[in-house]
Amino acid sequence: MKEIEGGVTAAKGFQAAAAAAGIKYQGRTDMAMIYSQTPCVAAGTFTTNVVKAAPVKWDQEIVYHHPHAQAVVCNSGIANACTGEKGYGYCKETAQAVSQALGISEDSVLVASTGVIGMQIPIDRITAGVKALVPGLDGSIAAGTEAAKAIMTTDTVKKEVAVQVQIGGQTVTVGGMCKGSGMIHPNMCTMLSFITTDACISKEMLQKALSEDIKDTYNMVSVDGDTSTNDTVLLLANGQAGNPKITEEGEDFKAFCQALNYVNTTLAKKIAGDGEGATALFEVKIIGAESKQQAVTLAKSVITSSLTKAAIYGHDANWGRILCAMGYSGAQFDPEKVDLYFESSAGKLKIIENGVSTGYNEEEATKILSQSEVTAIADVKMGCASATAWGCDLTHEYVNINADYRS
Amino acid sequence: MKEIEGGVTAAKGFQAAAAAAGIKYQGRTDMAMIYSQTPCVAAGTFTTNVVKAAPVKWDQEIVYHHPHAQAVVCNSGIANACTGEKGYGYCKETAQAVSQALGISEDSVLVASTGVIGMQIPIDRITAGVKALVPGLDGSIAAGTEAAKAIMTTDTVKKEVAVQVQIGGQTVTVGGMCKGSGMIHPNMCTMLSFITTDACISKEMLQKALSEDIKDTYNMVSVDGDTSTNDTVLLLANGQAGNPKITEEGEDFKAFCQALNYVNTTLAKKIAGDGEGATALFEVKIIGAESKQQAVTLAKSVITSSLTKAAIYGHDANWGRILCAMGYSGAQFDPEKVDLYFESSAGKLKIIENGVSTGYNEEEATKILSQSEVTAIADVKMGCASATAWGCDLTHEYVNINADYRS
Repeated sequence: MKEIEGGVTAAKGFQAAAAAAGIKYQGRTDMAMIYSQTPCVAAGTFTTNVVKAAPVKWDQEIVYHHPHAQAVVCNSGIANACTGEKGYGYCKETAQAVSQALGISEDSVLVASTGVIGMQIPIDRITAGVKALVPGLDGSIAAGTEAAKAIMTTDTVKKEVAVQVQIGGQTVTVGGMCKGSGMIHPNMCTMLSFITTDACISKEMLQKALSEDIKDTYNMVSVDGDTSTNDTVLLLANGQAGNPKITEEGEDFKAFCQALNYVNTTLAKKIAGDGEGATALFEVKIIGAESKQQAVTLAKSVITSSLTKAAIYGHDANWGRILCAMGYSGAQFDPEKVDLYFESSAGKLKIIENGVSTGYNEEEATKILSQSEVTAIADVKMGCASATAWGCDLTHEYVNINADYRS
Repeated sequence: MKEIEGGVTAAKGFQAAAAAAGIKYQGRTDMAMIYSQTPCVAAGTFTTNVVKAAPVKWDQEIVYHHPHAQAVVCNSGIANACTGEKGYGYCKETAQAVSQALGISEDSVLVASTGVIGMQIPIDRITAGVKALVPGLDGSIAAGTEAAKAIMTTDTVKKEVAVQVQIGGQTVTVGGMCKGSGMIHPNMCTMLSFITTDACISKEMLQKALSEDIKDTYNMVSVDGDTSTNDTVLLLANGQAGNPKITEEGEDFKAFCQALNYVNTTLAKKIAGDGEGATALFEVKIIGAESKQQAVTLAKSVITSSLTKAAIYGHDANWGRILCAMGYSGAQFDPEKVDLYFESSAGKLKIIENGVSTGYNEEEATKILSQSEVTAIADVKMGCASATAWGCDLTHEYVNINADYRS
């Protein structure tokens, strides 16, 4: 497997475009389209929030009940969430516009939105945007990058990645783009991720690969513990790589899953490191756990602890907060057996051993914690399971961004 | 029932004192003692965190396995958490010092600590502090207030309250003091609450009253979602009011519970409103719920949402975040039936009806949200159960306090 340049247009047969539709932002692009020259099987995973945005409901219908998808259209600025039947109707109108412009069935058009909750999208600008997008569709790396920029909200960098693997003697490419947390006029933090691949794979195995992989990737990310109404991961496979069709588990499926995992892990970490106001990517590894579930519970509890996140911002080796967050996670363990380490490009330091301080050097710990990527490793000494979660520090800028008026 | 002046010394036979023991802070008191002239039955509730501080373990032993308690000694500055066997030994030494100074059994001495995790308490200063406290014991209101000040950490105001009720023709007093979230050199946020009463009540009924009441009071408070290693509520009853002993449910028990609820609700709200860095007390009421449990789950999810808390700081009627937090709480409800109101001393405004915006006036909403106490009321229209939770806004000052170095 090797990482290559590009994102959603890296795989054969995929094109992308961006347009400035003036939905809410001025002077920037705010709509993106992904199009496959041939029909794709599609997999998707969606927010577990009871409050689901209209595009989530639309996409669930397509992914769960229709055999193929061929295009994705996404807008930033307004989330089309809490918008009732009218909002769902706008999803249909958007899909119809794409259907007409591209000559494909409206049932093969996926839609996505990110932005302010509770506001209706200006449907005329959206349909005009669709018409502007289609002529710009292009298979170049640059076109993928433009699409990745158009879906950004308070993201400070565009997020894309692509890899190639050999499957059945053919080169298969998996590429993707995503956006993370934050809005210029924030009402929510929405994660959207779009992955394209030219792998030839059945719809069933594609969904299986995605559903398993998100547990170790996107679901292990937290910026602020708030699960959005719009979170969506879409995975399109058009089969143009020409590999023998993957229809069951085996070596080929495994190779595909590895490529998918690389793409999703990379994108997930990009979301965490670019969390609203973040100055550092904070990684938490739990090792020596009794079960995977225990490790996941402990890692996610630490990554969402406001006190721990504030300490990371202050480069403060405040290990008591980490042990405290593990303690209230709901997972059982013996605090008096825990070893804890901090690690970064500046080194690795054992902070506590068997639940009490090692008498480590505070200056050395501060140096380790002053890097832009910081890892805490906790060994609970119960078994061999492990899990890794990603988050970011809690900063003044997070408060600035989220206390601002929407108007 | 009427509120009266005072706190832990309001009930008959209780004395208090404060002392400056120089444990970690300079130029202020940092130890407090509560003493009853006659033995008390004691009830307690403690942190559910797997990581329990040494004083929590000590107090659990006393409350669960010993018939009486007569004194509480508390220090601020160091939490005596994650301190191993040595830390537990120091609890015993502290209790022994109190035992000797007061001539009571060491098994009737409760201890409590709040402050930095992982540091050993300077036991010599603590035992010297005990000796300094005893001569100062006094039943005046002022003595109770001094004790309430000595247990403060980053609290900005001391927290105490007292009420009187008539039980069996006698005046029964219930009073208490507590401390909230935050440390000058923060490693944790610890809630400690000490309630005294001269009610005559069995140990069993006292524990029953407390265990039920904390569900609606302290357990409905969240400053940052981090459950401390030291959280402790202690309730001492010395029987000096002379009421017929309460040994079963009935009118007398009900009257006592109402007084206890008033004291605990008042103290819980004081903790929320004085949360680290807070500028506002944020109250969330869920009404029309199917069950109490559902209402509690929804209310707590909203009160702990970082995005919602940041919006309250910005006086922003960002109702999407509230609906979003209800949606990911785990409770089932129909988002398209929810009505939501904001209320404060500046008025009451319906913000959403049946899940969509009412088209309310943003200026009016901002005015309501600019008060120091703000309530959000969500009606899920499923039944008659309700719950109220209390929290605070998320502010720049919260980040300042918690990103600071401990050293």
